[in-house]
Amino acid sequence: MKTGSEYIESLRRLKTKVYAFGEQVTDLVDNPLFRPHINAAAVTYDMAHDPVTEDLVTAVSHLTGKRISRFTHIHQSTEDLVKKVKMLRMIARRTGTCFQRCVGFDGLNALYSVTYEMDQNLGTNYHERFKEYLLYVQDTDIMVAGSMTDPKGDRSLRPSQQADPDLYVHVVEKNEKGIVLRGAKAHQTGIVNSHEMLIMPTTAMTAEDARYAVACAIPVDAPGVIHVFGRQTNDSRKNGQIDQGNARYGIVGGEALTVLENVFVPWERVFMCGEWQFAGTLVERFASYHRQNYGGCKGGVSDVIIGATALIADYNGVAKASHVRDKLTEMIHLTETLYAGSIACSAEGRPTPSGAYFVDPLLANITKLNVTRFIYEICRLSHDIAGGFIATLPSEQDLRCPEVGPYVEKYFRGVASVPTEDRIRIARLIENMTGGTALAESMHGAGSPQAQRVMIMRQGNLEQKKKLARILAGIPEKE
Amino acid sequence: MKTGSEYIESLRRLKTKVYAFGEQVTDLVDNPLFRPHINAAAVTYDMAHDPVTEDLVTAVSHLTGKRISRFTHIHQSTEDLVKKVKMLRMIARRTGTCFQRCVGFDGLNALYSVTYEMDQNLGTNYHERFKEYLLYVQDTDIMVAGSMTDPKGDRSLRPSQQADPDLYVHVVEKNEKGIVLRGAKAHQTGIVNSHEMLIMPTTAMTAEDARYAVACAIPVDAPGVIHVFGRQTNDSRKNGQIDQGNARYGIVGGEALTVLENVFVPWERVFMCGEWQFAGTLVERFASYHRQNYGGCKGGVSDVIIGATALIADYNGVAKASHVRDKLTEMIHLTETLYAGSIACSAEGRPTPSGAYFVDPLLANITKLNVTRFIYEICRLSHDIAGGFIATLPSEQDLRCPEVGPYVEKYFRGVASVPTEDRIRIARLIENMTGGTALAESMHGAGSPQAQRVMIMRQGNLEQKKKLARILAGIPEKE
Amino acid sequence: MKTGSEYIESLRRLKTKVYAFGEQVTDLVDNPLFRPHINAAAVTYDMAHDPVTEDLVTAVSHLTGKRISRFTHIHQSTEDLVKKVKMLRMIARRTGTCFQRCVGFDGLNALYSVTYEMDQNLGTNYHERFKEYLLYVQDTDIMVAGSMTDPKGDRSLRPSQQADPDLYVHVVEKNEKGIVLRGAKAHQTGIVNSHEMLIMPTTAMTAEDARYAVACAIPVDAPGVIHVFGRQTNDSRKNGQIDQGNARYGIVGGEALTVLENVFVPWERVFMCGEWQFAGTLVERFASYHRQNYGGCKGGVSDVIIGATALIADYNGVAKASHVRDKLTEMIHLTETLYAGSIACSAEGRPTPSGAYFVDPLLANITKLNVTRFIYEICRLSHDIAGGFIATLPSEQDLRCPEVGPYVEKYFRGVASVPTEDRIRIARLIENMTGGTALAESMHGAGSPQAQRVMIMRQGNLEQKKKLARILAGIPEKE
Amino acid sequence: MKTGSEYIESLRRLKTKVYAFGEQVTDLVDNPLFRPHINAAAVTYDMAHDPVTEDLVTAVSHLTGKRISRFTHIHQSTEDLVKKVKMLRMIARRTGTCFQRCVGFDGLNALYSVTYEMDQNLGTNYHERFKEYLLYVQDTDIMVAGSMTDPKGDRSLRPSQQADPDLYVHVVEKNEKGIVLRGAKAHQTGIVNSHEMLIMPTTAMTAEDARYAVACAIPVDAPGVIHVFGRQTNDSRKNGQIDQGNARYGIVGGEALTVLENVFVPWERVFMCGEWQFAGTLVERFASYHRQNYGGCKGGVSDVIIGATALIADYNGVAKASHVRDKLTEMIHLTETLYAGSIACSAEGRPTPSGAYFVDPLLANITKLNVTRFIYEICRLSHDIAGGFIATLPSEQDLRCPEVGPYVEKYFRGVASVPTEDRIRIARLIENMTGGTALAESMHGAGSPQAQRVMIMRQGNLEQKKKLARILAGIPEKE
Repeated sequence: MKTGSEYIESLRRLKTKVYAFGEQVTDLVDNPLFRPHINAAAVTYDMAHDPVTEDLVTAVSHLTGKRISRFTHIHQSTEDLVKKVKMLRMIARRTGTCFQRCVGFDGLNALYSVTYEMDQNLGTNYHERFKEYLLYVQDTDIMVAGSMTDPKGDRSLRPSQQADPDLYVHVVEKNEKGIVLRGAKAHQTGIVNSHEMLIMPTTAMTAEDARYAVACAIPVDAPGVIHVFGRQTNDSRKNGQIDQGNARYGIVGGEALTVLENVFVPWERVFMCGEWQFAGTLVERFASYHRQNYGGCKGGVSDVIIGATALIADYNGVAKASHVRDKLTEMIHLTETLYAGSIACSAEGRPTPSGAYFVDPLLANITKLNVTRFIYEICRLSHDIAGGFIATLPSEQDLRCPEVGPYVEKYFRGVASVPTEDRIRIARLIENMTGGTALAESMHGAGSPQAQRVMIMRQGNLEQKKKLARILAGIPEKE
Repeated sequence: MKTGSEYIESLRRLKTKVYAFGEQVTDLVDNPLFRPHINAAAVTYDMAHDPVTEDLVTAVSHLTGKRISRFTHIHQSTEDLVKKVKMLRMIARRTGTCFQRCVGFDGLNALYSVTYEMDQNLGTNYHERFKEYLLYVQDTDIMVAGSMTDPKGDRSLRPSQQADPDLYVHVVEKNEKGIVLRGAKAHQTGIVNSHEMLIMPTTAMTAEDARYAVACAIPVDAPGVIHVFGRQTNDSRKNGQIDQGNARYGIVGGEALTVLENVFVPWERVFMCGEWQFAGTLVERFASYHRQNYGGCKGGVSDVIIGATALIADYNGVAKASHVRDKLTEMIHLTETLYAGSIACSAEGRPTPSGAYFVDPLLANITKLNVTRFIYEICRLSHDIAGGFIATLPSEQDLRCPEVGPYVEKYFRGVASVPTEDRIRIARLIENMTGGTALAESMHGAGSPQAQRVMIMRQGNLEQKKKLARILAGIPEKE
Repeated sequence: MKTGSEYIESLRRLKTKVYAFGEQVTDLVDNPLFRPHINAAAVTYDMAHDPVTEDLVTAVSHLTGKRISRFTHIHQSTEDLVKKVKMLRMIARRTGTCFQRCVGFDGLNALYSVTYEMDQNLGTNYHERFKEYLLYVQDTDIMVAGSMTDPKGDRSLRPSQQADPDLYVHVVEKNEKGIVLRGAKAHQTGIVNSHEMLIMPTTAMTAEDARYAVACAIPVDAPGVIHVFGRQTNDSRKNGQIDQGNARYGIVGGEALTVLENVFVPWERVFMCGEWQFAGTLVERFASYHRQNYGGCKGGVSDVIIGATALIADYNGVAKASHVRDKLTEMIHLTETLYAGSIACSAEGRPTPSGAYFVDPLLANITKLNVTRFIYEICRLSHDIAGGFIATLPSEQDLRCPEVGPYVEKYFRGVASVPTEDRIRIARLIENMTGGTALAESMHGAGSPQAQRVMIMRQGNLEQKKKLARILAGIPEKE
Repeated sequence: MKTGSEYIESLRRLKTKVYAFGEQVTDLVDNPLFRPHINAAAVTYDMAHDPVTEDLVTAVSHLTGKRISRFTHIHQSTEDLVKKVKMLRMIARRTGTCFQRCVGFDGLNALYSVTYEMDQNLGTNYHERFKEYLLYVQDTDIMVAGSMTDPKGDRSLRPSQQADPDLYVHVVEKNEKGIVLRGAKAHQTGIVNSHEMLIMPTTAMTAEDARYAVACAIPVDAPGVIHVFGRQTNDSRKNGQIDQGNARYGIVGGEALTVLENVFVPWERVFMCGEWQFAGTLVERFASYHRQNYGGCKGGVSDVIIGATALIADYNGVAKASHVRDKLTEMIHLTETLYAGSIACSAEGRPTPSGAYFVDPLLANITKLNVTRFIYEICRLSHDIAGGFIATLPSEQDLRCPEVGPYVEKYFRGVASVPTEDRIRIARLIENMTGGTALAESMHGAGSPQAQRVMIMRQGNLEQKKKLARILAGIPEKE
């Protein structure tokens, strides 16, 4: 298994074609626009080598018996499904952001069982071919992006009905050696710092759409592949550190539009080609695995937001106000309700015909619906406690400026014992984690005294959450 | 009354000391960091001269009988209170953002009645002095910022208990000519493009806090006044137009930390000095007038968000989906509930002893509570309909880039009949209006078939809202 | 104008045919199944004679200049519309329940303006005829039920498409003297203790449904009219007083299925007969007037629930707990949001072509949507504070029983100073007001410290609400 | 293990002293006030003998290796915890109501582990004694009520501070043979049809409260034990069948105030006596087990409500309306979120020092908080779809009455193909399940297209839920 730095170095060897702000990127690994995303993904590699975390972050391959990264593993039990959720929450608590590897992970698991079922039903031979690819992935420990979402154009029309036939990825040529693809995939999380991409169809299809029913693996730097990197909130706020909030790992996953301009794929890497009957099954399989994640990764991100909010309450001198306790309790309540959904759909998982385990899709779905509602409520409560100053803070340059820096220092102090810079760092962490792109990205996807009693039982919990926030905001540990 | 351009020119004559990004600003009026806020405020001046809008935007002075800007008017009836709300919604529908003049407006009205009551109770003579100042404001039509919020430091301590005595503005010297102030005011909306600021205390006080009980008017460029401008989400996204969303008027009000470094105020401009017993009354009076606004200004901003969201639904080909109709209906329902609160607290207003009309404070308060909840729900629904692409769109430079611009153009098209750039413009408007600072700033502060029937009666309403969004996003009118 | 007792006596002179529990009722006025509804309606008559309340409960007829009950008045101004809302809240605070007169009131106002518009558009002569009827109603001060809702059968079919043609009221015969009707009206609030009923169509119609487009007035005891009284929650709990909660006025309005078995109506009482084009307008007009009411009547009922809940908190010794204060504050917030909707749609009313004033239908509609949501939340919070014992209290007979009465007395005591019976009375009031039929009937149709500050300003408000609850629960006033 | 009828017969042999409506009950088993509760409990006995359900409803005793009712089992694994939840949901789907056995079940499990820990910490010998009692319960398969909640008087005072010392159960005498208790327990679910009661303290205690720290087992017909049965909504609606909604099993659990008038308990049945340090632990242990239940039992009850609501939509001809589908989807979403909480706290269970498994208390707690919110929302949506007629239906006697029965039959018909009586039965089931006591009792304690897709995958699910409702409402199966 790769280490974080081996992963980072391996990216330098790729010839990935990336555009951002209208120019081709030549220094991807060291460019501050991309580096935080790369750092976040690197954590998933490093944690596989840490004895404290390896139980969750690694697994034993059912194909080879070797220890592999869990992100390349096919779930063999409900325990594996539960460990996936716990791993995601653990890493999100450390990075405070998206670490981008779950999409490919879910794609591998979805294709594993669906290729098996296709072969059983249609007499094709995709499953063995896919297992070969899986062995390669487990062996090289590469990062695989999951490429499902097509641009889709007019949502009221099916793929084959669009004015522009390229609005869904499709096969434009088949020959002895392989197939040629055209189209694009949107919202490609982590793709510019991945090694390969796993193409999958984005919707159920009919016979007319057969050429759109295609699944395969492609290197992200294959000829004809061009990535246009998406803007994020505050992505031009790169001078200095504080104002980025979480300068090391960033706030979101880093997404791109990936264009496929007649890209060749050899048959060894093709896992569906025309079997439109299974497009819907594959989408649903993938989507359920993906919905399973939210109580893990967003739960962990929410832990950091709660910690940051509790710290701001401390810094403002309001931590003991009963309405502040109530609101923090409610934030924990919402976060744990998300987590309960992820755990429940995992514990209620069942084996598929291929032997791979699948989550309970109904319970995975409620998790997804809850996350799209609760994240806004969590942000609202965070803003309510933090107060308007997270929106009106001066810049890091003002803090460093000889003329006005002393005023910023003086007037943004909260309780006398806490350095103003710490207070600003936490406020910036909240500002960035609860606004703009962070909120919108979540769309991919209680207050009673009894509650407080249980939460207070878990007070260590709140202290621990504060610690997570402090680390990400770059505030040195108090001894 | 000034026109918009007269207002803008008048700002050039001031010597306002503003810092931003660690440097003193020398070109305030033309600097893209400030100009949108100036443009938004200028609209309030221009609309006073437009026969279509003057009924709401102007009023007749009860002191002089002359026609004046409503923003300098003292409410003489419940009709005046209702017109204030309608004016705010109208201007917000045109600017799509905060136009900054309500804080000073509310300060003038609060001080008008409270100085009267102070005089009645304490035998002081502030009211006449204040009326003189009001005449000056009405006559010169200057823009007055409302300066209430102190930095507050440790919120569990009163002003006089803070470790640093300057964390609340206070009197450090009194002499024959006037008083000298120290301290700072935070979150000063629109102050860098105002002419004067109206200082008021921020909380109820006790006898120990008497030197903190101070109200007065100061020019924003008086000696010793220094403004440090706050960051906003995406404030470094200033190259190009599209990515700012609403490039002309901006997204928020533009706020600053205003430092008062031993600032002299002549007695003619002092309206409270030591009368701590009336600090709480003044705060409550001001706060109620200010809470009254939200169903107006945020209602108008929400109208633009609804219009933009309805347009994106059109552009994506999903406008007829029943769940999309339901969500748009719910957004309208929430917006009109906000508006109902503002109208109700105005219609139920009562005269104060001074003759000025005051809103119903209980109904003003529910409006405030509702806005802090509903804005998040409105944003959530907007994101839900718009979809993740508002968070992952490439930059304007990519759109203009010869190599990848054609791909952006091709793959971000929705329904075939709508230019991609229009779709991107509206998505950027939504991104900016519903994220980051915009959301946090709101903390300053219907889905049944029957509902749909009424909304559909008001379909013109929805079309009209779309038009507002189109104008702000810079999309040329379809003939 | 009638007094309450004159109203009650006048009912004895009618020959209304009512069935309940499978038997014809012979003692309607004195029967405990009906008497509470009669008492509630009688309050609307008595308050017209009370100098304290007459300003809201009476009005001056625009036809005769005489003082009349507001319930028979045609709104002549926005002030009239606002007074209607205030009257409803005031009476609901006194009765704690539905007093049944608003349906007919809204029907009179809807028909007044729609008959005018029909005449203008179609050359009919209904408006003068309707004014004659209105004069009669104002003069005799009779209680008029509003009869709109048809049984409707299969909701996916229009009136003329139903398997049984009688599922909507329709004209089966026209002759020189008048028309003959067949069908039924459902959910007829207060009809068994009204004098007349005002028939209106229930939905928009097409030309095929023309014979269903009928509006007219009929005495409730006309030949062929049969009323089958609906069950209510706990309607067999009539022995004793306490367990009914609000024994004097009841919990709901008292509703019946009214069958029209070939009922003759003379032309002087026919106000629409075949003009299907205006059926939808009439329904919308009526519905908007009716939606206007909810912030008034349900607001007043909610005041009583809040008062009862605050009392139970006192009796349980928890009134000072911060979460209890927060929940009571939230209940007030929801109630005032409802009220704001009713006030706003009234203040924004406009004249119709007939001169009668009409509410803003959009704002009336949000009031309706809010009431269907908030009432459940108000009940939830009430139950949360009151606790489970409102669901498990022994009966009044147990309290009076020599063997176990002393145990009930002993073990259901809360704070030592409050008699157990008082605590039980309030608990029963809550049980009955927040459960069963009360909740279902509502389908006809904030917690921050700042909020608390305003509410506490209005503390008298909370004490006053407690008093309302105490009176209805039959607890003698403490001196 | 007993069968249902053996259980019922065994109750006849007890001399339980029960009062209701002010009189002593002499025919408990056959009295319609109690029989539905007895029937519901009997189902838990019968299902233990049904091969289809025995896997969930029985277990193997870890003490004897014999097959026993799961309701007397000590959880030995997370699988046991998960099976408990599934059993509760399964039985609730069959009975549509509370079957009363979980309180005692949770009491047995709480005392099992806490007696072990007391012995470890304090050198007492309660655990062995408790195991003896457990063997007796498993062997005789008796129904044990869980008796925790004291009357509590003034909630701001601790047990020993109350004006009346009896407001919490306490030891008034200790002698060689045992102890003597005084006081009462409130809200005693199922106690009048249980065999024994398990007394436990209701709150954490201090040394002053030591005599209130008592746990023991007592026969429900022991000398000095008197039960006063609580009223329920509609409990006097016992003539006929339909109007009760679920005549066979009732709507709630049937609760009593149980008075302990100097009741003797031999030492063999005493499991805590003065160890106040463990009172809080026992309460928290019990409460967590009990909170675990709600996603099971209330989830199953909710399944029936959803089924009934879906049936009413069918009967009204609105099942295909998009807003009806959305609301049913939301009801399922809320129900499954409850269930996910129960599954997650079970799957995340851990062994206690005694070996017995305990749930995750934080996740159990969120389940409890969610149920108190969601049940109201589920009822609101049910009422919204069903419409006002569930509140205004005539009585069963009217339906059977020769004069008006034909009108009821005619005018309450929905779609032509469904008998009116079926529609009334389902409406009555909804009325009773979603109102009054049912709602209050719950205080003991999504709409997107993607969601619909998953729900529609589970359409069988909705059909199956309809079937549950039909059976409980007494509607014969359609072939």
